[in-house]
Amino acid sequence: MGRIVVEVMPKPEILDPQGKAVARALPRLGLDHFAGVRQGKRFELSVDGEVTGELLDAARRAAETALSNPVIEDVVGVYEVDEAAR
Amino acid sequence: MGRIVVEVMPKPEILDPQGKAVARALPRLGLDHFAGVRQGKRFELSVDGEVTGELLDAARRAAETALSNPVIEDVVGVYEVDEAAR
Repeated sequence: MGRIVVEVMPKPEILDPQGKAVARALPRLGLDHFAGVRQGKRFELSVDGEVTGELLDAARRAAETALSNPVIEDVVGVYEVDEAAR
Repeated sequence: MGRIVVEVMPKPEILDPQGKAVARALPRLGLDHFAGVRQGKRFELSVDGEVTGELLDAARRAAETALSNPVIEDVVGVYEVDEAAR
């Protein structure tokens, strides 16, 4: 069974209140190393059998329609998970 | 300016209602290629200057404390973004 990852992030010009909340919480935990935090989404689509080019195309269509809102979000990655490397 | 990505996914044994909702929506869009969908989170932590080993350690601590709930989520990746490759 193969897996395809889809990564979605808020567009740079879009305010990201979740990311801002995390960025403000980190220093209280002693983690003051970071200039900013953006929070997005990561999907894993599982497929029966191997990941083919056709399935990657379907994942890209899913990413642009169901998995992201193109007005406020960018799809920043669609790729096959290398199961052997995990 | 460097960036570190933190990837967080629901543990395999945890029900994932957001992922299930997406999985049920895809066939209605003509995308019936996928056996299942899991939805997690993707964070981008920006740092001033280069990403160092110390900063990656801090990001791992942030991932385990602030960015994930270890009862229901796994941190599946903490890595530097290769800005040149984007």
